[in-house]
Amino acid sequence: MASLIAPSKHNPIEDAEALQRAVKGWGADENAIIAILGHRNGTQRTQIRQAYYDLYQEDLIKRLESELSGDFERAMYRWILEPAEREALLANIALKNANMNYHVIVEISCVSSPDELFIVRRAYHNRYKRCLEEDVATNTTGHLRQLLLGLVSSFKYGGSEVNARLAQHEADILHEAIKNKNHNHEEVIRILTTRSKTQLVATFNRYRDDHGIAITKKLLDEGSDDFHKAVRIAISCINDHSKYYEKVLRNAMESDGTDEDALTRVIVTRAEKDLEDIKKVYYKRNSVHLEHAVAKKTSADYKKFLLTLMGKEE
Amino acid sequence: MASLIAPSKHNPIEDAEALQRAVKGWGADENAIIAILGHRNGTQRTQIRQAYYDLYQEDLIKRLESELSGDFERAMYRWILEPAEREALLANIALKNANMNYHVIVEISCVSSPDELFIVRRAYHNRYKRCLEEDVATNTTGHLRQLLLGLVSSFKYGGSEVNARLAQHEADILHEAIKNKNHNHEEVIRILTTRSKTQLVATFNRYRDDHGIAITKKLLDEGSDDFHKAVRIAISCINDHSKYYEKVLRNAMESDGTDEDALTRVIVTRAEKDLEDIKKVYYKRNSVHLEHAVAKKTSADYKKFLLTLMGKEE
Repeated sequence: MASLIAPSKHNPIEDAEALQRAVKGWGADENAIIAILGHRNGTQRTQIRQAYYDLYQEDLIKRLESELSGDFERAMYRWILEPAEREALLANIALKNANMNYHVIVEISCVSSPDELFIVRRAYHNRYKRCLEEDVATNTTGHLRQLLLGLVSSFKYGGSEVNARLAQHEADILHEAIKNKNHNHEEVIRILTTRSKTQLVATFNRYRDDHGIAITKKLLDEGSDDFHKAVRIAISCINDHSKYYEKVLRNAMESDGTDEDALTRVIVTRAEKDLEDIKKVYYKRNSVHLEHAVAKKTSADYKKFLLTLMGKEE
Repeated sequence: MASLIAPSKHNPIEDAEALQRAVKGWGADENAIIAILGHRNGTQRTQIRQAYYDLYQEDLIKRLESELSGDFERAMYRWILEPAEREALLANIALKNANMNYHVIVEISCVSSPDELFIVRRAYHNRYKRCLEEDVATNTTGHLRQLLLGLVSSFKYGGSEVNARLAQHEADILHEAIKNKNHNHEEVIRILTTRSKTQLVATFNRYRDDHGIAITKKLLDEGSDDFHKAVRIAISCINDHSKYYEKVLRNAMESDGTDEDALTRVIVTRAEKDLEDIKKVYYKRNSVHLEHAVAKKTSADYKKFLLTLMGKEE
């Protein structure tokens, strides 16, 4: 369930006019901006961008970028985009990063539905005049490249059929591959990048039933290089992405310094999808409400904005 | 240009009724079937299948399968499908073949536009309840797997921008990879599977300008294993698929026995796309009209049907 609270009806022209009042003159009215955009869904935000352009011949995103700053600006910039456009942006930022944040690439590939992922790839074309695979491939090598390329390029079957014998067979292949270390990356990659989500979940369950340990836990003992990490993240995202995101949020706020990039990414990308579910998992795991944790680790407009997206007004 | 001659208007119900008359009783009226279906485009054929089903609660394809036989039946079966459905079928047949016809997989991946290829992948889901990558991956290993998976999974950028420096750089990479034999398959695969068609054509041209020989010719000297063959086919299809298909047709009819599978595949898949262009290339290369060559190598209903699709009535 989404955490975003958006009205079923809104007037894009009135919204655009109110936003113009909020950004004109000295200093922007951040409260007004949050009150509007923090309560509009993807379609509504796109209508507002269009109405704003029609009224003022100006790109609302560029205007907000120049008026806002810091974590709040970055969060707003990500939020205002349509979901597929935003994932394309996040993938591109991850790829441009000096030590490539491959976990963002794995997340986008493994959490999105096959059709959603395809729309992200199309959005990447439109935005960067290149394909996503191209940038993934030029920034990686070896087995990590093969895994990431396979994941971002996949168009997995989305049906609910499960082949139990195949699950057994491939759980065995995964077991052998982990046991013999580094000896059969190819088959691990093949299984993860081509089998349907439902089939993979059956395979992971088979593994746990046979060996009494979750495959992600087992992998943890085996290696901590980028390839092993990426495999673990892929399995976590496929198995239960709410749990995966809970962990990302927990890690982002656990250390002394907060990882605002991760915090923003999860809240902004999940707010109109399933942040309510993630909030529940977070509370169950930490006995603290996610909103309280976020409120403690953030401040000012950034804090207000994230809380708004989480459905929690101050 | 297409070679198929189809009326701009047709009545699907009348067509379905005429087809029913042609298949009922003892022995089918092949001439009537060719006269109708050999002159209908993809949309029209789908309308006829639907009308036939509505009128007779019977699948026209199944009925034709049981009434016709041999090469004519196989050609008709392929023809009647919609293009994406047909490519999904051809890919599947190629993958089920004992010595996998990877060239069909390369053809489909490299000749189709990025959007067409995606529709083929969707058709594969619908038809086989699995994804195409899955079947490609389980039937191949090593670098051939990596190449084929990369090609079938690609969603290349379709724009016409060319980066001349990149073309030079990657022409050099290809040159080094070929010179050092087998030493940098990974980079060859990366370039072929991720760069846009326009960019690749610029890279291949750069290669020829620098080294005075076409890259496909150079590759011919280097190896004849499946991987090298697949690379050559991919480059040919990307560079100029009319020339590629001309060669497939020539090879199919050159030997004593005719390769009906290849002959059918090219004529059926290109008839409503660009068979006229391929016919021109064929004539230029062989000083024989393709229709004459085909007429000499085939007979009976199969011959009549292929010639009809080629726009040549007897």
